[in-house]
Amino acid sequence: MVKTIISVDPKKLPWQQETPLHNRWHPDIPPVASVKEGEVFRVECVDWTGGQIKNDDNSDDVKNVDLSQVHYLSGPITVEGAEPGDLLKVEFLNLGTLDGDEWGFTGSFAKENGGGFLTDHFPCASKACWDLEGIYCSSRHIPGVRFAGLIHPGLIGTAPSAELLKLWNEREATLVAEEGTDKEKTLCGCLHTRPLACLPEAKGAMLGKLGHFKDKQEDSEWLAIANEAARTVPGRENGGNCDIKNLSRGCKVYFPVFCPGALLSMGDMHFSQGDGEVSFCGAIEMSGFLELKCSIIKGGMKMLPVVGPSPLSVNPIFEIGPLEPRYSEWLVFEGVSVDEKGVQHYLDATIAYKRAVLNCIKYLSQFGYTEEQVYLMLSCIPCEGRISGIVDVPNAVATLAIPLAIFDQDVRPPKTLEALAAGVKVVQNVCMSTEGGAVPFDPRL
Amino acid sequence: MVKTIISVDPKKLPWQQETPLHNRWHPDIPPVASVKEGEVFRVECVDWTGGQIKNDDNSDDVKNVDLSQVHYLSGPITVEGAEPGDLLKVEFLNLGTLDGDEWGFTGSFAKENGGGFLTDHFPCASKACWDLEGIYCSSRHIPGVRFAGLIHPGLIGTAPSAELLKLWNEREATLVAEEGTDKEKTLCGCLHTRPLACLPEAKGAMLGKLGHFKDKQEDSEWLAIANEAARTVPGRENGGNCDIKNLSRGCKVYFPVFCPGALLSMGDMHFSQGDGEVSFCGAIEMSGFLELKCSIIKGGMKMLPVVGPSPLSVNPIFEIGPLEPRYSEWLVFEGVSVDEKGVQHYLDATIAYKRAVLNCIKYLSQFGYTEEQVYLMLSCIPCEGRISGIVDVPNAVATLAIPLAIFDQDVRPPKTLEALAAGVKVVQNVCMSTEGGAVPFDPRL
Amino acid sequence: MVKTIISVDPKKLPWQQETPLHNRWHPDIPPVASVKEGEVFRVECVDWTGGQIKNDDNSDDVKNVDLSQVHYLSGPITVEGAEPGDLLKVEFLNLGTLDGDEWGFTGSFAKENGGGFLTDHFPCASKACWDLEGIYCSSRHIPGVRFAGLIHPGLIGTAPSAELLKLWNEREATLVAEEGTDKEKTLCGCLHTRPLACLPEAKGAMLGKLGHFKDKQEDSEWLAIANEAARTVPGRENGGNCDIKNLSRGCKVYFPVFCPGALLSMGDMHFSQGDGEVSFCGAIEMSGFLELKCSIIKGGMKMLPVVGPSPLSVNPIFEIGPLEPRYSEWLVFEGVSVDEKGVQHYLDATIAYKRAVLNCIKYLSQFGYTEEQVYLMLSCIPCEGRISGIVDVPNAVATLAIPLAIFDQDVRPPKTLEALAAGVKVVQNVCMSTEGGAVPFDPRL
Amino acid sequence: MVKTIISVDPKKLPWQQETPLHNRWHPDIPPVASVKEGEVFRVECVDWTGGQIKNDDNSDDVKNVDLSQVHYLSGPITVEGAEPGDLLKVEFLNLGTLDGDEWGFTGSFAKENGGGFLTDHFPCASKACWDLEGIYCSSRHIPGVRFAGLIHPGLIGTAPSAELLKLWNEREATLVAEEGTDKEKTLCGCLHTRPLACLPEAKGAMLGKLGHFKDKQEDSEWLAIANEAARTVPGRENGGNCDIKNLSRGCKVYFPVFCPGALLSMGDMHFSQGDGEVSFCGAIEMSGFLELKCSIIKGGMKMLPVVGPSPLSVNPIFEIGPLEPRYSEWLVFEGVSVDEKGVQHYLDATIAYKRAVLNCIKYLSQFGYTEEQVYLMLSCIPCEGRISGIVDVPNAVATLAIPLAIFDQDVRPPKTLEALAAGVKVVQNVCMSTEGGAVPFDPRL
Repeated sequence: MVKTIISVDPKKLPWQQETPLHNRWHPDIPPVASVKEGEVFRVECVDWTGGQIKNDDNSDDVKNVDLSQVHYLSGPITVEGAEPGDLLKVEFLNLGTLDGDEWGFTGSFAKENGGGFLTDHFPCASKACWDLEGIYCSSRHIPGVRFAGLIHPGLIGTAPSAELLKLWNEREATLVAEEGTDKEKTLCGCLHTRPLACLPEAKGAMLGKLGHFKDKQEDSEWLAIANEAARTVPGRENGGNCDIKNLSRGCKVYFPVFCPGALLSMGDMHFSQGDGEVSFCGAIEMSGFLELKCSIIKGGMKMLPVVGPSPLSVNPIFEIGPLEPRYSEWLVFEGVSVDEKGVQHYLDATIAYKRAVLNCIKYLSQFGYTEEQVYLMLSCIPCEGRISGIVDVPNAVATLAIPLAIFDQDVRPPKTLEALAAGVKVVQNVCMSTEGGAVPFDPRL
Repeated sequence: MVKTIISVDPKKLPWQQETPLHNRWHPDIPPVASVKEGEVFRVECVDWTGGQIKNDDNSDDVKNVDLSQVHYLSGPITVEGAEPGDLLKVEFLNLGTLDGDEWGFTGSFAKENGGGFLTDHFPCASKACWDLEGIYCSSRHIPGVRFAGLIHPGLIGTAPSAELLKLWNEREATLVAEEGTDKEKTLCGCLHTRPLACLPEAKGAMLGKLGHFKDKQEDSEWLAIANEAARTVPGRENGGNCDIKNLSRGCKVYFPVFCPGALLSMGDMHFSQGDGEVSFCGAIEMSGFLELKCSIIKGGMKMLPVVGPSPLSVNPIFEIGPLEPRYSEWLVFEGVSVDEKGVQHYLDATIAYKRAVLNCIKYLSQFGYTEEQVYLMLSCIPCEGRISGIVDVPNAVATLAIPLAIFDQDVRPPKTLEALAAGVKVVQNVCMSTEGGAVPFDPRL
Repeated sequence: MVKTIISVDPKKLPWQQETPLHNRWHPDIPPVASVKEGEVFRVECVDWTGGQIKNDDNSDDVKNVDLSQVHYLSGPITVEGAEPGDLLKVEFLNLGTLDGDEWGFTGSFAKENGGGFLTDHFPCASKACWDLEGIYCSSRHIPGVRFAGLIHPGLIGTAPSAELLKLWNEREATLVAEEGTDKEKTLCGCLHTRPLACLPEAKGAMLGKLGHFKDKQEDSEWLAIANEAARTVPGRENGGNCDIKNLSRGCKVYFPVFCPGALLSMGDMHFSQGDGEVSFCGAIEMSGFLELKCSIIKGGMKMLPVVGPSPLSVNPIFEIGPLEPRYSEWLVFEGVSVDEKGVQHYLDATIAYKRAVLNCIKYLSQFGYTEEQVYLMLSCIPCEGRISGIVDVPNAVATLAIPLAIFDQDVRPPKTLEALAAGVKVVQNVCMSTEGGAVPFDPRL
Repeated sequence: MVKTIISVDPKKLPWQQETPLHNRWHPDIPPVASVKEGEVFRVECVDWTGGQIKNDDNSDDVKNVDLSQVHYLSGPITVEGAEPGDLLKVEFLNLGTLDGDEWGFTGSFAKENGGGFLTDHFPCASKACWDLEGIYCSSRHIPGVRFAGLIHPGLIGTAPSAELLKLWNEREATLVAEEGTDKEKTLCGCLHTRPLACLPEAKGAMLGKLGHFKDKQEDSEWLAIANEAARTVPGRENGGNCDIKNLSRGCKVYFPVFCPGALLSMGDMHFSQGDGEVSFCGAIEMSGFLELKCSIIKGGMKMLPVVGPSPLSVNPIFEIGPLEPRYSEWLVFEGVSVDEKGVQHYLDATIAYKRAVLNCIKYLSQFGYTEEQVYLMLSCIPCEGRISGIVDVPNAVATLAIPLAIFDQDVRPPKTLEALAAGVKVVQNVCMSTEGGAVPFDPRL
C-alpha cells in the first residue's frame, strides 16, 4: 500500500486543504511531511491556480485569474538525511489524475494579464477544457484531436537556501530595473509586452504552515519572509517551474540539495504539454498525484556542473522514462530568427521558435481549425520544439514537429490545392474566448 | 540505374570540378542540370569547405580555413515545369558517402575566425576526424563513442528571386549596421564576439557557370552579381543552411519556388549532427551523395504560411523519414536563461540552450574526456536540443538530451561520488588543437 | 468520476466477493452489470487463481494449486444494444493495480500439475514474487532486473453462443480422445507430458450468479450447465485466454458478438508478460482494474475473416496502444525445429521457439542466474518471440529477443571468455522451489 | 575505400561469375577470399535464384524455376585466425542494392514445385516485381503500399565441419524417411503437401572452385562431395537460411566456428521481408552487397548454449542494429491452433500463425486487394509474427501485426459496414499468376 503523505481535495479552496499548501520558495517554509530513502510515497496536488478555472464554456475565469496566488504546491517534504551539497535522486514511479477530477484545461491569458508566447497575436483570454479518459484526452473545444497524455509535474524542486534565494532576487530585480529603458526595448525582439519577471510579492502569498496573506498581512515576521520569498513562475537552479514534458512516468531526476532535508515541493500537474507550453497556461492543467521514491547521493552535488560565478549555479539533470508515447510520423515546421515585422535578429532561438509556431498555426488553420484553437492545441499536444541550428549567423533555426497520428484527418500537404480545399473537414469553432474574441491574426502584420 | 546528374571528385579543387559548383545564392546563377517530375536522380557534393580540411592530426587547417569560399554547393538544378508560387516536394530517397572518401571531420573555429556557439570558452581551433564504417562512425580523437549516422545535407534550398534576395540583403545589412552600437551590446547576451551576419562579398565567390572570383574579379557584370549574391551561411526562406539533422533518408521536404525551374541546390553533407551544431563546423562534415525525386504542387506555395510583411516570408516544411536511429535511454541536461556571468536574461532560449550545453560539457568531462572533446562531441552526436519552456518569465528552459547507448561506459550519475571516481575510464586526450590549446574552461568564469 | 461496475476485495475468497465471479464460459451465465456505448466504466479483477498464491518465499502454494478453479473472471457485462453478428470495439483506457495489493507472482507448475512449456526440464514448482512500484517491478527472487510493466488482461472475451460452445467442446474432445494413441505420440514432438486439453468439468466451477460447485453439485440444472461450460484455459474465437501482452493501455480490440448483450468478461491481470508466457503461470500475475469504453459496429462481425467450416470461426483483431515501453537494444536468440534430443521436426514453430528459449536460458545462466530463475524471467519480462522463417523446410526458425536495458549488468557477449568469467555478477539464487528443487538442466539431455 | 573481395555481375549467369559461387554447404568447398580481423570488406551477391526470375509481368519464370540450383552464395571467406571452437562476431556495417540492378521480386511457387506456407490455398505460381528507390520500394503489381526496406541477407553462415554435416544429413534423412507413413500424416497438421526436407542432391550443385554439376557430373571426387553437401534451404546450427529480417544494417551476429578460417558465406539478399516469409520466395528478393567487419572471440563458442545430444547443437545469437524502420500504429490479427478444417491441434504455433495469416489476408482483401496480392504482400512488408501464448492448452496463440503507415488508405476497421463498402479504394488486380490463376480462396474450405 503506497503511503499518501499529502492529500488534497480539489473541491476545497487552497487555504482550506488539510495539509497547508505554499506558493512561494523560501527556506523557512516548514516541511509538512517527511520520508525516508527508498520509501514509496504518494503526493496529491491541486491544479496550479488552486481551482480558479472551471470546466465550462466561458473563459472569463481565465481572463480574471488572480496570478498573485500561483502556483499552489504540495510540500515541502523532508527527505531524511539529505544535507546541503547532496544530490537527491527522485524516481517518478507513477503519476495520474485524482479520482473524480478527471478533467483539465488549457488557457491563454489576456494580454493585460501577461498573455502568452504569442500574446501580440492572441491578446484575449481563451480556454479549452479536456476530458481525460484513462490515458487519452479530448476536448469539446478543439475537436478532431485525441492523444495519450504524458503526465508530469510542471513544477518540482528543492527549497533554495537563503544564499540562493538572494541570488535569484538580485538578478531578477536587475532585469526588472531595465523595464522601460532603451535596453529593454532590445531585449528579445517583440516580446516586450509581458512583465520581465515576477519579483517577490506578499499579496497572495501562502507560506504553508506559516499561513496565508489574508490572515497574515499585518504580521511583520510573516511579511519579512513573504517579501523575500521567490515567486514560483520560472524554472531555476532548484528545478522549479521548468515545464519539461519529459518529467513523466519512470523518469529519474537528480536535484541539488540546498537546505537540510532537501525540502522537496511539487505541483502544476499537466496531463500533456507541448515543448514551450506556448500559450502559458498551456499544458492540460489538472489536479493529480505523484508516486515517488527518493535516494541520496552524499556530496553528489559535485556531480552537477557549475556554470556561473556562484557555486550554486547548477541545474538538475534527469533520465527519461521508458513509457513515453512514441509517434513515427511527424510534420515539421521551420522558423528562423526573423520576426513578424521582418526584422532580422541575431541567433535568437526564441524568435526562431516563435516563427515556427506561427507557421504551424497558420498552416493547420487550413484544415478547419481557428488559429486560436491551434494556438491552444500546440500548447498541449506532445509536439517537439527543437533548436536545430544555433550557429549560422544571423539565423537561429528552430523546428516544431507535430505527430500526425493524433489527428482524425490527414494534415500532410495534399497533392493539389484543390485537394486541400475539398478535403478540409470543417471543425466547428467552439473554442471560447471572452468578449471581443481573438484579434484576427494578420499574417502580414 | 539511378542517373547521376552532378558528379564530383573530392580529390580535385572546387574550381576544377567538371560541373561547376557555386557558393552564393543568386537567381542568375545558371542551372547545371535539369530533371523531370518523378525522375530519380543522384547528386554528388564536395564537403562544405571544398577540401580545405585534411584527415590528419593537426588542426591548423581549421584555424586557417578560408570562410569567404563556403559553402560549395552542387546545382542549381532545374525542375521542369516548376514556376514561382509552386511548392516543390523533394523526397530524399537515399544519402551516403562517396566511394573512397569515407571520412569526416568536426571542427571548432578559432575565435578570430568567427568561432562557434561557445567560442568564449573554446577560443582556439580544434578538429576531430571520423572514420565512417557503413552506418557507424568513430574517431581516434574522441575515443569511447560510436554511433549510427543520420546523414543529411546541412544545406539545401531553392534559388531566391531578385525580390527575395533584396529582402535578405536589406534586413541583414540593417542588423550589421548595429555592430558596435549600444543596441548591439544587448543583442543576445554574451554572444557578441562573432560577426552579426555575413553580407555579400565578391571575394571567394564562385557563381557556377559564371565563374570564380579569381578569374572574374575584374569582370563588372560578374561583380554586379557577386556583390549582391547572398552568402550561404544562414538558413532562410528558401531552406538553405538550416542544419536540421532530421532531413535524412526518407524525408519529404516542401520548398517554396521563387524562380522558374525552382533551381534547387545542395551541399554541406553531414554524416551526423547534434541539434544546434554547437561548434559551428560541428557536424561530421563530409563529401557525399543524395538520391532525390521531385514533384510539383501547382500554386502550392499558398499552403505555406506567410509570417511577415512580405508575401515571400515563408519557410519550408517537411515530413520526417522512417529510418532515424532511435534510442530508448537518454540523459538530459537543463539550462535556464541566466548566462555564465550570472546575468538574468528574458526568455532567451539561446542563452538557456548555451547553459544546457555547458552543463553537459562539464558533466561529461568527469568521465575522462576533455571539455574540448565533449564540445566537439555534442556538435555531432545525435543529441536533441529542446525548447522546453518559453513562457515562464524570466527563464526560458532548454534541454539537451544525449543517448546513452553511444558510449562505451555508463555515463549516468553513479550511486556515490567514490563510484564516479573509481569508474571513470581514462580516455586519452588526443583531440588536437592548435598551439596554445583551449583556454581552460573556468566554470565560474 | 469513472463508474466502477464490478469491484473486488483481494483479501476475500472468490466466492465471498460481493459481485459473483465466474470461471467457465457459457451463454447462460447471467450478466452482473450493464453498460452503454461510449460510457467509461471500471472493472476490478482478482488474480486468476483467486488468491491461492501468497507473497512469501515458499512455493508449495504453486505446487498444490487447484487448477479446477481457474480463471476467476469479472463479468459477464451486458453492452446495451449489442446483438449476435455485431462487432464490439473495446477501448482499453487504463489498467492498473488495486490499491493495497501492489504485488504479483510468476510461477512454474509442477510436472504432475501440468507444468509449463519446459516442464521436461523444470519439472518442479517454483515461484518468484514481484514488488510493483508504480510503472516498475522488481523481485527479491530474481535480482538484477527491473523494468516497466505492460499491464494487460491475460483473458478477455465475449460469451460463446450455444452453437460456438458445442463447436469448442467437440473439437477439443476429439483431440483429447487421441491421448495415449500412436497419433498423439507424434503430436508436437516432445511436449506430450501435459494434458492435451481441459474439457468441461463441474468440479471447481463457479457460474456467477448461478453459484459455485460446492453449493450446487447436486443441482441438476446447475450441473447441466457446468458440464458443458467451457474451461477458460485457451484462447479461442471469442478472445479468451489469449495472453497477448500487447492488449495494454490504449489498445482497441474488436470482438465478435455471439450472444445478445455481448456478455464481456475479463480477468487474469498481468503486470508484464513475455511472448509465449513460457512458464505457464508465467506472467506477473496480479489483481487489478481495467477502465474500458465500448462501441458497437452493427453487423460488423462480417469484417472479421472466417477461417474454417463454421461461420463462427473468427478471431478478434486489435490496434496496439501508444504507450508500450520501447527498448532500443536487444539481444536475440535463434531456434530451429530440431528438438533437445536432436530429432528433426517439420516446420514446427513450437519446437523452434522452445529451442530459442532454451538457448536463452542457458546463455543468461552464465551471468550468475540459475536456469530456473531465467525460465521464470523469460516468462514475464517484455521479451519478444518471433516466427522468423516458417517456409524453409524442414526448419522453422523462431527468435527470442530480450531488451538489454532491463538488466543491471551488460549481458552482451564480452570480447573474451576471460571477461565473461571476470565480469559475471554473482546473483544470489533465492528463487525458491519445492523440495527437490529443479532437475538440473543437462544441455546435452 | 572499402575493399570489395567478391564482386558479381547480375547480368551474367551464376557459373559465369568471375569469382565462383556455391550453392551447397560442405567444409571442402575452397575459400575464394580472405580477410583479417577488423578489416572492412565488401561482398556482392546475385539473387538467390541466380537470375532465373525476370522483371516482367509474367510469372512463368517463377512457375518453372529450377530449385535444384538454389541458393547461390558468395564465399566461402576465410577469416584469418579463426579456429573451430571460436566465436565469430560479424558486424553488418552496411547493406544495399547493386548499381543498375535496383529491383526485386516476390513470388509464390506452384504447389507442384513445393509451394509456400499457404500452398493449399494458393497453389499457382505468382510474382510481384518491386521498384527500389533508395530506402523505399513499391510494386506495380501490388499498388497502394510503399515502405522503407530492412535490407538483410536471408542466408549467412559459417561452413559446417564434416561432423556437423553428418549430423544434418542423418537427422534430415530420418525425417524424409517418414514421408508417406502414418506418422507423417500427423506431422504439423495440413502442411503435408510440401517435401519434408531437401536432402543432398548432386544435380544443380555448384561447389565454388570445385566446379558445377554440368561440368563435373562424371567426376567421382566431385560427386562424393556433392552427394554429401547439404542443401542451403533451411537455417541450421551455422546460421544459414534463417530468413531473419532483423539481420540488417548495424546488427552484430555471433557465429560458431566449425572449420579453420570460419569459411563465411552469404547470399539471398532481401530488400524487405515479413516475419515468416510466408510465400516462400517471399521476401523482396534481389542482388546486393554487404559491408562487413569480423572479429574473433577465441574459444568463444563456449558462450553459445548447447541444446541437444551433440556438442555442436548450437545456434547463432545477434544484437539488433539501431536503424530499423519503426512504426507506431499497428493492426494485429490473432490465430489459434485450430486449422482451416476446424481441427484442433495441440499448442501448434505453426497452425496458429497460419490462421493469423489467413485472417489478415481475408481482412485486407476487403480493401480492394485480391487475396493473392495480400499473400505476397505479407511475405515482404515488415509485418511482425509473434508467438503470443504457447502454454494454454490446447491453443497456441500467434499474432501477425501490420504497420498502418505503409498503406495509402486507412485499413483500420471503419465505424460502420457502410463506411467499409464506401471507402474501399479499388486497387486494380495486376498481380499476375500463371494460367489458371489462383484457386479462389474459400474461407469455409
